[in-house]
Formats: sequence, C-alpha cells, structure tokens
Amino acid sequence: MGLLEETISNIRPLDETAARAAARRLDSLTKPRGSLGYLEQIVCKYAAVRHDPSATDGPAEIAVFVADHGIAEEGVSAYPQSVTAEMLRNIARGGAAISVLARHYGIRLRIVDIGVRADTRDEHLPNVEYQRVASGTRNFLRGAAMTSTEVRTAIELGIRIARESAKSGISIIGIGEMGIANSTAASAVLCAITGHSPHEIAGHGTGLSESGWENKVHVLVRALDLHRDTFGDAEALLAAVGGFEIAAMAGVCIGGASENICVMVDGFIATAAAAVADKMVPGLRAQLMFSHQSAEGGHQLALRHLEARPILDLDMRLGEGTAAAIAISTLKAALKLTHEMATFESASVSEKLDR
Amino acid sequence: MGLLEETISNIRPLDETAARAAARRLDSLTKPRGSLGYLEQIVCKYAAVRHDPSATDGPAEIAVFVADHGIAEEGVSAYPQSVTAEMLRNIARGGAAISVLARHYGIRLRIVDIGVRADTRDEHLPNVEYQRVASGTRNFLRGAAMTSTEVRTAIELGIRIARESAKSGISIIGIGEMGIANSTAASAVLCAITGHSPHEIAGHGTGLSESGWENKVHVLVRALDLHRDTFGDAEALLAAVGGFEIAAMAGVCIGGASENICVMVDGFIATAAAAVADKMVPGLRAQLMFSHQSAEGGHQLALRHLEARPILDLDMRLGEGTAAAIAISTLKAALKLTHEMATFESASVSEKLDR
Repeated sequence: MGLLEETISNIRPLDETAARAAARRLDSLTKPRGSLGYLEQIVCKYAAVRHDPSATDGPAEIAVFVADHGIAEEGVSAYPQSVTAEMLRNIARGGAAISVLARHYGIRLRIVDIGVRADTRDEHLPNVEYQRVASGTRNFLRGAAMTSTEVRTAIELGIRIARESAKSGISIIGIGEMGIANSTAASAVLCAITGHSPHEIAGHGTGLSESGWENKVHVLVRALDLHRDTFGDAEALLAAVGGFEIAAMAGVCIGGASENICVMVDGFIATAAAAVADKMVPGLRAQLMFSHQSAEGGHQLALRHLEARPILDLDMRLGEGTAAAIAISTLKAALKLTHEMATFESASVSEKLDR
Repeated sequence: MGLLEETISNIRPLDETAARAAARRLDSLTKPRGSLGYLEQIVCKYAAVRHDPSATDGPAEIAVFVADHGIAEEGVSAYPQSVTAEMLRNIARGGAAISVLARHYGIRLRIVDIGVRADTRDEHLPNVEYQRVASGTRNFLRGAAMTSTEVRTAIELGIRIARESAKSGISIIGIGEMGIANSTAASAVLCAITGHSPHEIAGHGTGLSESGWENKVHVLVRALDLHRDTFGDAEALLAAVGGFEIAAMAGVCIGGASENICVMVDGFIATAAAAVADKMVPGLRAQLMFSHQSAEGGHQLALRHLEARPILDLDMRLGEGTAAAIAISTLKAALKLTHEMATFESASVSEKLDR
C-alpha cells in the first residue's frame, strides 16, 4: 500500500460530537443565539475537523506551490511563462501579496517549488523548499501533462507537507499556488469533474482579452476531447491535464484530513485541487473550508459542485493563498470569540424571554 | 449657526485625485490588474475620504453607543430591557463580542452610555464615557421618542466624538450600538426613509418568535401612522421614532466626513443612522463604508437604498460594532498590501502581454 492509500485509509469521519460541543459553547455566550452567523458554523466545523470539542486555536500556515505548465506555449496566459520564476523570487523575498498578508497575520509561509521551469536552486532564495518533480509539465494538447509517476510524486509531496505541518503543531493550513497558465489546467480539471463546459468554467485568468479568452476556451475544448477517456479516474485526469501544484494541493487536502488539520482552500485553482481530492476520497469536501468565491470564471459553479459556502466574497482573483490568508484570519477571530466571550452566567446577563 | 450646521458646511467632496493616485499605485504592484477585487476599491475610497493620495493607514477605533428605548415596553424585543445595562457592563469588562474583537484586532474601543435607563455611574465601570442624554427614550406609540433638543444633543455628541478621534489621530472609526428594542426604532427610521413597509424591513432582532415578530410589525405600522408628518425632516423623524444611539451614530457619520475620517458602518441599526445622516447631508452615503450585509430584516433593502456594497456577508446579526471590527481589519489588510507589495519594476517581474 502506497502513502496515498495509507493516508486515505486513515481519514476519519467528521467528529459531530465535537461540533455539538462547540455549538453548545457558542449558545452560552452573551449574544443572541446564532447571531455570529456563519462564523458559528465555521467554528463548529473546525471542532469537527480537529476532533476537538473545545475548538482550540493553533498556529496556521499557508503552503504556496509554484509550478510551470507546458500548456502556456498555446498562449493561454496574459503573462509570459518567465513570470512563474519571477514571482517565486518575489514571494520568497517578501514582495508578493501572499508574503505581505502572511507577515501581517502572523501566518507561517511555506514556499514550495514543485516544478518551476527555471531552476533557482543556486540563487539562495530565502525559505523556498525545492521539491521539483520536473521543470514544468508538458503541453497537454500533445499528450499527457505528467506521467503517472509524476502525479503520484506530487500528491505524496502534498501529503508529506501536511504531515510535517501536523508534527509541528499547525492546526490550520491554507493552500495556494502560483504558476503561469495554471487556470487553464484547473479549468480542464473542473470541466472534467463537474461536467460543465469550458465556456462556463474558463475565466480571463490574469487578464486575457476577449480573443485571448476565446483561444483559451478553444484549447480547453480540444484538450478535453483528447483526454476524455481519463475523466473517470482522478489520478489519470491529473496526469492528463493537471499540474504539479494542483496534484500537491490535492495531497494536502487528503493529508490534512488524515491529520485532523483544518485545510483552507484558496481560490479557483485550489478549488480544482479540492475537487480532485474529493473525487479520490468521496465526501472529503465536507472536511475542507473554502476561503472565498473568486471572480475567476466558473468558480461559483465549482463551489456549488462541492456544496461549499465560501467565507468571503470580495471579487479577488489573485491566488497565491491570498484569500486563504484573509479567511484564516476570519476563522481565528471566530475562535477567539468562542473562547474569550463571557457567558450569560459569568456576566450576569439576563436570558431570552419567551416572545 | 449650530455645531451641526457648521460641521455639515465643512464637509468637502470626495477627493477623486487621491483615489486615482491610489489606483495607480495598486496597478503598479506585482499582481494582475484589479485582481485584489473589492479590496482595491475600498483602498481607493479610503484615499478619497481621507484626501490622502498615499492612503496611509492609521489607528482605528470603534465607538459603541449604548441606550434604552421606551418602545421596549411594547414587548418588541426577545430580551428584557435590563439587558442594555447588563451588556454595558459586559462590554466594559471585556466579555462582550466587541470587547473581544477590539482587543484581538488592536482597535481602540470607546464605550458611550448615551442614555441607558439604569445609571451605572457609581459602578466604576472601566472605560465607559457617560454622555447620558436621558434615561432612555419614551415609547413612540404614545408620542415622540425624544424632544428636538435631545435629538440635537445626541447628534452633536456624535460629532464631538468624531472630532476628538480626529484630534487623537484616528483614521478609521467604526460605529456600533447596543440597546434593547433598538431594531424597532431603526426599522421605523428605515421604513420612513426608504418607503419600504414594516413587513419588509423589520427582522427578528435578537430572536423573536413569529408571533413576537408580528407584534413588532404591528407596533411599527401604528407608529408610522402616528408619526407620518415627520418623514420629510431627518431630525423630526429621529425625534419621533429614533433613539439616542441612532442620532449619535448619525452625528459620527457627519462629523467623520467633515474630519476626513473613514467611517465604517456596522449593521442594521448603524445603517439606519447612516441613512439619517445621508438624508441630512445628501450624498453623504458615498463617504461611508459599510461593513456587512446582516441577516437582520430588510438590511439588504436599506443597503440598496444607500447604493452600498458591504465588505462582508457572514449572516451576522449581533451589532455592537462586531462586523465593523472585522471589516476594519479587512480594510487594514488591503492598505498593508498597497504599501508593502513590490512593484513590477522593483521586483523585476515581466509585464502583461497583449493577448
């Protein structure tokens, strides 16, 4: 049995008893019942995922997976492929949006080169973990993006990262990414899993014009035709049209669930990874949290497929884990309220009347 | 000329030049243009309100106005009136939701007794400012809730608070409230201003049953009939069916705008105050920020009337400034991104292609 199968077999169902204990605690606090709204639901879900009736807060981290995509050569992104490595440097040096937010919120940032085309290992970038499966995927209009071995390697790297995080006491892990053309790979994955068309799912990514978007849709239509026989199997689908970061984030979803870590899914591309993980482990969707509804393409359709209610709706479409960072801070505020508010009893506040 | 008139005359239009400067800064940062979504819009608005092209962050505070309402004797709240004073104590002692959030986010909390029925001045509650206009308003089914002098006093207290905050360097002020039965007063105000019916506007407040809600609607129908001749004048309307905290929060909206402070409006009751302020100063709505769409009654209709896009949508319905606290932290994260992200030039990241 491989690491993936072993990890899947370790996933326990959500702890509904813990969720109920958290709900009871919330009901005892000095506020009208349920008046914290969705914040109360995410606290209960956190307790259920953590198998922790007291819903104790703990340190959070965000893992940003950076990778290149062979499909970029079809002109599906508004930016040149060199931007992937340039942004890897920018994230590492603290200038990217996720660098700023992680610092601002005190969230540990793991930056993982999971397969960038340019090898930056001799540049001494601070805090980059090199787990390069290959120098980018292949163009999936000409064959599979990855070999089955590469897919498995990337998934298991994600699982290992979740395990390491669990060992170091992390209670919440956000998953984010950077990779030129990865919204095309994510769109292909989501079309295959949800049954929606490229017209419905593909967005303008980092800023394609209308004609650029039409080209992207056309590329997706051809790719889906070419790889239709893989749609029934999540790993085969990933190999055909996925990406290293998508596979690794799916691994974090699975590894996180097996370790009772709360996984906060970022945006469109991370949601594609969550959908893959949910296809591998039916029902896994219920163990994940979804940061936001992004402005990218058919993200709303993807969230609906996963029966997910996002925490934020700010029209963000940046990726990198940026929405996950804000959503994690919101979850942490909700946990703080749960633990620090007075109860009706402790504060001598009168209870509700029967009207 | 009174303080109110003087303050209104000092309000300058939004600084569109500052907004454009902030937008240019945002466009230079290492992210696809516009990809921070609504966060970019609130940064530009902040620059326009502050008349500050660099959109510099500064300390934030939340002013919570606590008051009682004579209309409570009609059984319109699910909680006894004594809860207003009990919650004043709880907020002051750090056990209320807003106490926890203000501490968590490092937001200064001003707690203002603007007219609680029970006088707690000899209880030595920490950090409570006593600005008691009276020991609660009168039952507006039997006449006006306040005298015109009381209304003016409460509005001017709000203005003075905004002025003091400006003097102490505050750049963002959230407005929140606590007061048993104040959702009934706020509903009456919003019905009068928006033209919507009590059925559409009134909510279940702190947790009324269906029959309790029907009683509340019935009370509102009678009150609106009784006070219809005041609907054309904001101060007369406030006197008829408003509350001290609603008048004071309207004063903060007006005073904040005149001092170039960013005012973050909390939920349903604070939105009623914003609507009153906007009626006094036509167009003031554009100078305010709205924290969230709450789950209370016709909050959505009220926000639509004010052409407001809320920052959060979490089904909260707690008041006290709780949603303002979370929204302020979101605005502050957006400001941090604006100032700390690298530019395409500084990080040597390639620019967008023409596709």
